[in-house]
Amino acid sequence: MNNVSDEMRTLWYDDTAQQLRIIDQTRLPHQLQVVTIDTLEQACDAIVHMQVRGAPLIGITAAFGVHLALQRDADALTQSCEILAKTRPTAVNLQWALSRLAEGLVSVPPAQRAESALEMAKTMLAEDVAACSAIGDFGLALLTELLTAKQARGGEAVLNILTHCNAGWLATGGWGTALAPIYKAQQAGLPVHVWVDETRPRNQGASLTAWELAHSGVPHTLVVDNAGGHLMQHGLVDVCLVGSDRTTASGDVCNKIGTYLKALAAFDNRVPFYVALPTSTIDFEIEDGVRDIPIEERAGDEVSHVSGMDDTGIVRRVAIAPPSTRVSNFGFDVTPARLVSGLITEKGVFPATAQGLQDIKAWL
Amino acid sequence: MNNVSDEMRTLWYDDTAQQLRIIDQTRLPHQLQVVTIDTLEQACDAIVHMQVRGAPLIGITAAFGVHLALQRDADALTQSCEILAKTRPTAVNLQWALSRLAEGLVSVPPAQRAESALEMAKTMLAEDVAACSAIGDFGLALLTELLTAKQARGGEAVLNILTHCNAGWLATGGWGTALAPIYKAQQAGLPVHVWVDETRPRNQGASLTAWELAHSGVPHTLVVDNAGGHLMQHGLVDVCLVGSDRTTASGDVCNKIGTYLKALAAFDNRVPFYVALPTSTIDFEIEDGVRDIPIEERAGDEVSHVSGMDDTGIVRRVAIAPPSTRVSNFGFDVTPARLVSGLITEKGVFPATAQGLQDIKAWL
Repeated sequence: MNNVSDEMRTLWYDDTAQQLRIIDQTRLPHQLQVVTIDTLEQACDAIVHMQVRGAPLIGITAAFGVHLALQRDADALTQSCEILAKTRPTAVNLQWALSRLAEGLVSVPPAQRAESALEMAKTMLAEDVAACSAIGDFGLALLTELLTAKQARGGEAVLNILTHCNAGWLATGGWGTALAPIYKAQQAGLPVHVWVDETRPRNQGASLTAWELAHSGVPHTLVVDNAGGHLMQHGLVDVCLVGSDRTTASGDVCNKIGTYLKALAAFDNRVPFYVALPTSTIDFEIEDGVRDIPIEERAGDEVSHVSGMDDTGIVRRVAIAPPSTRVSNFGFDVTPARLVSGLITEKGVFPATAQGLQDIKAWL
Repeated sequence: MNNVSDEMRTLWYDDTAQQLRIIDQTRLPHQLQVVTIDTLEQACDAIVHMQVRGAPLIGITAAFGVHLALQRDADALTQSCEILAKTRPTAVNLQWALSRLAEGLVSVPPAQRAESALEMAKTMLAEDVAACSAIGDFGLALLTELLTAKQARGGEAVLNILTHCNAGWLATGGWGTALAPIYKAQQAGLPVHVWVDETRPRNQGASLTAWELAHSGVPHTLVVDNAGGHLMQHGLVDVCLVGSDRTTASGDVCNKIGTYLKALAAFDNRVPFYVALPTSTIDFEIEDGVRDIPIEERAGDEVSHVSGMDDTGIVRRVAIAPPSTRVSNFGFDVTPARLVSGLITEKGVFPATAQGLQDIKAWL
């Protein structure tokens, strides 16, 4: 079950052409366009402009970016890592991947570094696919338990899962984090239905998660981010499953803005709230996520303007607010550990507590 | 302070032309277009298609709609009330206004009913303006207290208020409900700043509240609905102020979808959460809002498609999700009374409890 089909990859290295290729996620769901990344600058741009996004994928892209930098300048290790580290502030995988490369390559002779960086990047990609597959398997066991319990209570035979943003194969090397258990459930014949938060302002739910789930035939319904509380009050959600951009040593979870509101609603309605993450997104240096995780602020036009396809098939950008309206656009929020039912990692499911995080650390 | 300028009216009766006129709110913020309503059918369409919206305004429009029906057919009282009652299910003001008309007109000779209906509709409009003005005054006293307390704690000299949807003068006869205290604060020189939730799916915050506040020069910042939790965690919100489409005898508040999520975040961060409402929105027949208030489900394309203005000044509608994505679109949710700090009505500020509602009832 560690294999993921080539169709479900958003980033790959073409060994024949010796080129890095990515799906340009800013064009989905309207266009499926593959872009070649040839230079460090292009790798940085792809991360900044979110052609690639998702904590695991950002780290992997950065690793390939170091390779591309070293191909042009064998002495560019430190400088390229510094440039890449500045592309986005919140996800810790970026720093994790760059530190791992810097440490691994410093003892390699400069002339061989580009080749070694490529091997390391490929290894990280493969490891991420394997981690996501394992997350999927552990998550599947959890979903199976929840469905069995629901059926025992006389509930309908379908498990309703709410997810926020996109934590699918588009956000990772393959499988996804929060969506991995859902794909595994689909393969195992477990009946699931997914409530997809549209995830303003960039609409990753509407544009990416809905597209991914349709691609795999997983039943799903798109809702506005405002709807989750109502759905949970009315027993229409059996479990929430989200990803994480950074998880602290106390179990606080930083994820796409709005995740915290869903966690509050889940807690208020006794709906289990699970976070799926590869251990590479854990920041053991930080305890208090609200206090210590830097939250990215992005351009206001992501809020005041929306891109979509008009009736004639042309993608257009339209303003939804009066011109010159002041906008604030925080990219992430922090869900305190007390609201998290558990962390689904490639090492198993752990409580979102200091002890749980210690137990995860013991595996690494 | 009971006056509201003609500029801040979204519905008025032109006595000279003997016609009802409204601002077409579906065209804001891009176009300020006034529409004449001549028939019952046009009144119904204006409500269904949300050219007029907001609980108080829906009731007032319906009252004028009965007048228009009676002008054409003096025997149309019962039938026109039935037709209008079906236009939208959640706001109770609609039923309240129609019951009041039906009861008031049943003893009037049919030939005089159209004229009487017009007088009653005008009275309801004037009463709503007065009620909203009083809400503004009671709310202003509350905001003044909150700002004084904040300044005593050494906080900045500005009161940050978060609001959801549009409960301004566009939603009422004048002043607004949740925005009335803000306009009164502006007039009184109290420094306020408003966080405006964009309010998906119809973006009433981005298109109406931001437009209203800019019109009056009230400092404000537009945010996505997902942002409120983060803002409250970081002390950036001093008070939440929202409207209500129906309030139950136990103090549960039904309002625009997503209100409940903000109330949860306010409670979790000890931010006061006040609801401003004319007593006409109280449904004393219902106790449990989650169980008993019918929640309107609207067309899915409100979620899958967004309207806005392109760079050339043309208003266009674009799709943000893959075609054929299934969509669910609940219009409202219910905030349990336990999360509400108080109800600001035209009779004063009351606790959101059964006793508080009893006390309000004693005033009516």
